[in-house]
Amino acid sequence: MNGQMMQQPLLISSLLVHAERHHGEQQVVSRRVEGDIHRISYRDLATRARRLAKALAGLGMKPGARVATLAWNGHRHLELYYAVSGSGAVLHTLNPRLHPDQVVYIADHAEDQVLFFDLTFLPIIEAVASRLKTVRTLVAMTDRAHMPAASKVSGLLCYEDLLEAQNDKFDWPVFDENTASSLCYTSGTTGNPKGVLYSHRSTVLHTYAAALPDALSLSARDVVLPVVPMFHVNAWGLPYAACMTGAKLVFPGPGLDGKSLHDLFESERVTLSAGVPTVWQGLLTYVEANKLKFSTMKRTIIGGSACPPAMMRTFTEQYGVNVLHAWGMTEMSPLGTACALKAKHEELDAQARYAVQAKQGRAIYGVDMKIADPNGNELPWDGTATGELMVRGPWIMSEYLKGEGGSPLVDGWFPTGDVASIDADGFMQITDRSKDVIKSGGEWIGSIDLENIAMAHPKVAMAACIAAFHPKWDERPLLVVVKKPGVELSREELLAFFEGRIAKWWTPDDVVFVDAIPLGATGKMLKNRLREQFRGHKLPTA
Amino acid sequence: MNGQMMQQPLLISSLLVHAERHHGEQQVVSRRVEGDIHRISYRDLATRARRLAKALAGLGMKPGARVATLAWNGHRHLELYYAVSGSGAVLHTLNPRLHPDQVVYIADHAEDQVLFFDLTFLPIIEAVASRLKTVRTLVAMTDRAHMPAASKVSGLLCYEDLLEAQNDKFDWPVFDENTASSLCYTSGTTGNPKGVLYSHRSTVLHTYAAALPDALSLSARDVVLPVVPMFHVNAWGLPYAACMTGAKLVFPGPGLDGKSLHDLFESERVTLSAGVPTVWQGLLTYVEANKLKFSTMKRTIIGGSACPPAMMRTFTEQYGVNVLHAWGMTEMSPLGTACALKAKHEELDAQARYAVQAKQGRAIYGVDMKIADPNGNELPWDGTATGELMVRGPWIMSEYLKGEGGSPLVDGWFPTGDVASIDADGFMQITDRSKDVIKSGGEWIGSIDLENIAMAHPKVAMAACIAAFHPKWDERPLLVVVKKPGVELSREELLAFFEGRIAKWWTPDDVVFVDAIPLGATGKMLKNRLREQFRGHKLPTA
Repeated sequence: MNGQMMQQPLLISSLLVHAERHHGEQQVVSRRVEGDIHRISYRDLATRARRLAKALAGLGMKPGARVATLAWNGHRHLELYYAVSGSGAVLHTLNPRLHPDQVVYIADHAEDQVLFFDLTFLPIIEAVASRLKTVRTLVAMTDRAHMPAASKVSGLLCYEDLLEAQNDKFDWPVFDENTASSLCYTSGTTGNPKGVLYSHRSTVLHTYAAALPDALSLSARDVVLPVVPMFHVNAWGLPYAACMTGAKLVFPGPGLDGKSLHDLFESERVTLSAGVPTVWQGLLTYVEANKLKFSTMKRTIIGGSACPPAMMRTFTEQYGVNVLHAWGMTEMSPLGTACALKAKHEELDAQARYAVQAKQGRAIYGVDMKIADPNGNELPWDGTATGELMVRGPWIMSEYLKGEGGSPLVDGWFPTGDVASIDADGFMQITDRSKDVIKSGGEWIGSIDLENIAMAHPKVAMAACIAAFHPKWDERPLLVVVKKPGVELSREELLAFFEGRIAKWWTPDDVVFVDAIPLGATGKMLKNRLREQFRGHKLPTA
Repeated sequence: MNGQMMQQPLLISSLLVHAERHHGEQQVVSRRVEGDIHRISYRDLATRARRLAKALAGLGMKPGARVATLAWNGHRHLELYYAVSGSGAVLHTLNPRLHPDQVVYIADHAEDQVLFFDLTFLPIIEAVASRLKTVRTLVAMTDRAHMPAASKVSGLLCYEDLLEAQNDKFDWPVFDENTASSLCYTSGTTGNPKGVLYSHRSTVLHTYAAALPDALSLSARDVVLPVVPMFHVNAWGLPYAACMTGAKLVFPGPGLDGKSLHDLFESERVTLSAGVPTVWQGLLTYVEANKLKFSTMKRTIIGGSACPPAMMRTFTEQYGVNVLHAWGMTEMSPLGTACALKAKHEELDAQARYAVQAKQGRAIYGVDMKIADPNGNELPWDGTATGELMVRGPWIMSEYLKGEGGSPLVDGWFPTGDVASIDADGFMQITDRSKDVIKSGGEWIGSIDLENIAMAHPKVAMAACIAAFHPKWDERPLLVVVKKPGVELSREELLAFFEGRIAKWWTPDDVVFVDAIPLGATGKMLKNRLREQFRGHKLPTA
C-alpha cells in the first residue's frame, strides 16, 4: 500500500524558483574577470537563467545534451548551473587547471556540445578548440564590449548577446528526478579521468543534507563565499544550498589570493566560507602579515584534504573563526562527513576538543559508512582499528560515466580509497589514502599524521610525507618540506620536533627541503609525483 | 539520460539506524505513565525497536497492516514509530482526546488490526473494545508488574512481554519509498474525520526540511522536548528529526501542566520545545506565578494556531526564549512555513520585528504556496491582498484515505482552507480560516486580528471572535472572552482597548464573557461550537 502524498520529482530548477519567490531581493555578488564587482538579485538571476535556458534550446541543446563550462565562481556560472540542469541538459564543469590534453580528452569523452568559458581561459580555448571532436559552439561568458577583439578561434558567441535575444517566458520542464543533471570528472592519479554523473534527485537530497545545522548550516541570514571552485564537485553543493536557504552568495572569481579574499570577506560581510587548506594558508599568511581581522566571518568549512591542526588553532584562537572539518569525494556529490561537535564535547578542554575537530567527522544523514579489512570484514568503531572506508547513499556514485573502470561497488558499497578509523561516537578520521600509506616492516604508518606534525612547526610552510625505499623495512617515511620564506631550518631540528609527538618508529627517516610541492588541479598534494621524484632517494638509515 | 547514482529508497528505518550508529549514546528521556523518569540510549532503543518489529510479525502484521496507538509522548511510542513503519506496516496514531464514538469510527475506518495503548487510556479501551470491528489484539504499553489486575477487556497483551520474547536478530526490510508509513486523521469540524496517509518518502523529505536551520534547526547539541503530541501529525516530525540529527529527546508523557513541563525543562536541560499556544499559556502562567526562569531553553516553536503577540513578547523579553512561529496542517506532514527572520529584519526595532515574527513565515524549501481569489486567480505577494492559501509539495496530501471527501486538489494544489496574505519577502500571514472569516457588508474581517488584540489586554485569558447575525451587515464580529481569574473587566473597557489598534469598522459589536471556550482534540478553539451557542445572540447594534 502506497502513501497518498503528492508525487513531485525533486528537480534542481525548484531550488532557483524557491530562491526567486522567497528570497527575490537576496543578492548574488561576483568579482568578475572583467574586473568589476557585480550584483544581482535572485529574482533577476532567475529571469536570466530562464532566458539562458531558452538560448540553450536555440543552440539545439536537447535533454541529456552535455553543456560544458570552463569558468570561475561567478553569477554567470550560477546561471548556467540552473539553466542547463533545469532545462534537462547536463552541466559539465571542466577543471581549467588541467593540462589542455586532459581538457580535450574529457570534453571528447563527455561528448560536450557547447562550451561556455570565462575570458581568462581564452588561451586554453585557443589551444584546444580545433582538437575538440564534439563541441560545436563556444560561448564567451561576457558582454559584447568585452568580447576578444581578435582570436585564433572563429565564431565565438557572446553570452550576454544570447540572453538579450530571448524573452522571459519560460516554464521549467518537469521530468523524472533520476535524470542526469551534471557531470564532474575525477582527476585520478592513475589512468584517464573518469566522469561522475549526478542526478536531480541526488543533488536535491545532497542539498538538504548539506544545509543541515551540523553540516554547512546555511540560513537566510548567512553570507557565504565559496572559495571551493564551481568546477570542482559543484563547489561542495553551495550554489544549490544557497538557493534552498536564501543565503547571500559572494563569488570571488579568479581572485583567490589572500588580499582579494580578505577584501571581499570584509566588504560583503561574509559569515561563512569553504575551501581547501592551501587557499586558507594563503589567506592566513596575508591576514597575519597585515595584522588584519575577520569582522563578520564566523565559520569556515575545510575539506579537500585534512586541515592541519595548527591552522585550526590559528583560525579559532586568533581570529574567532570556527573551523568545520568536512570530508567527501567527487564520487559523493561530495559531502560525506562533517565534524560538528556533540554536546559532550563542549565540556572538553581546548586541546581535547581540537583532537575531535581534527577528525573528518560524523556521516551526514543519508550517508552510511563502514571500515573494512583487506578481506572485506567490517572493523569495529573503536577509534583505533583502521581499514578502507566504504560508503553508500543516494548521492553516492554507482558507476563512472560509460562504465569506465568497471564496477566500482563492493556489495553495494563504494570503496573510497581512504584508510580511516571510526570512533565510538561515529567520528571518522582518515589516516591516509590507501595508496599513500607507508608500509614499514609489515606495519602501516599514516602519512597524514606525520605531515600534520611537520606543519605545526613554526618554520614549515608545507610538508608531504611519502614512502621511500628501505632495504630492511621495505618502506620508511621521507618528509618533503617547503620552509617558510627567509627562515633557517635543519633536518635535525625538524626531526627533533617529532619527539614525544608520535611513536618513535613512526619518525621520518629523512627530510628533504624543496621549493614547492606539486599540487593537483583541485589543490591536493600530488604525492605520486613526489614518489617518482624521490624514487632513487637513499635514506641515511638504509 | 539518467544519473549514475546509487538507487536507495528513502526509508524511515534508516533514521533510527543513523541514530544508533552515530548517536548510540544519546539519550531518550521519558516521564512515563507509571510515574518514573525513564532513560534509554538510541542504541538500546534501536534494539528494542527491532524486537518490536519481530513481535509485530509474530502478531501477524503484514506490510500495509494498520497498527494503532493511543499513547502519550514516550519511548515506547517512539519504538512503535520505528518498528511499525520500519517493518512496512502503517502506524496509525489515534487521538485519545476524541470522543470514544470517534475513536471507534476512525479505528474501523482505518481497519486497524492491533492497538497499543498507554495505561492512562484503559478507560477508553474498555469503552470501545467490544465495538471495534477490525482490531484483533490489544497491547498495554507497560511491563508485567503494571498490567491492570482486572479489566473489563480480556486477553490484553503486555508490551514488555512481547519484546522479551524476541531476540535482536532483525534486518530492516528494504522496499519502495512510496510505501505508506503512517496515518493520522484530521478532526474535521464538519463531517467524519478523514485519514491522511504518509509515505516513507514524504516523511524523510519532510524531516530533512524540518531540521534545516531556518525551520526547527536541530543539531546533536540540542535537547528537544516535543509538547506537541505524537498522536498529532507525528509531533510535527520531531521524533524523526531527532534521529536524523542526534538530538536528545525528552518526552513529557501525560504531564503537560506548567509545573511538570518546567521541571522537565530544567532537569533535562531542554534547549528547544514545540507546541500549541494553549499549552504555553499554562506554562507561562506557572512560571510567572512562581517567579521562575528557563535556564537552558533558547527556542520554542509555536504552531497549531497563531501565537498571540503578547505571548511572543513575554517569551522573548522576560525569559530570553526565541519564539519561532510555524504553520502547517495534518494534510502537510505538517510543516509548511516557519517564520525565521532574514538578515534585513535583524536591523528592525523590537516592535517591527515582532510584527514580522507574528506572521506564519516563509515556505520551507519543498513547499510551494500561493494565494488565490474565489475564482482561482493568483493574488500578488504584497502583504495586503488576502485569498485562500494553496500549497503543493512532496509531503502534501493528494487525497484522503479511501478517497473520502473526493478529490481535494485544485489544479494540483491543495486548498488549505486558510485565508492569508503573503508579503514581498515571501512571509505568509493567516488572517483567518475561510469558514471563520466575518463577512460584514461584503467586506471581510479577519477574526484572528481581533482575537490577538483582545488577548493583549492584561485582563483577558482567552478570546474568540465569531460572526454574529446582523440585519444590515449580514455578519458583525462578536467577541467571546474568558477573563483572567479574579479580575473585573467590562464590555466597554475591552471595546475601548480596540481604539487605535484597528480600523474602526472592524471593532467588535459586542462582547460576551464565558467561563471557558471549547477546545478541540488538538487544542484549537472550536468556533463552530461557539457560533452554534451564540446563534441567537442579539447584537446591540442590530
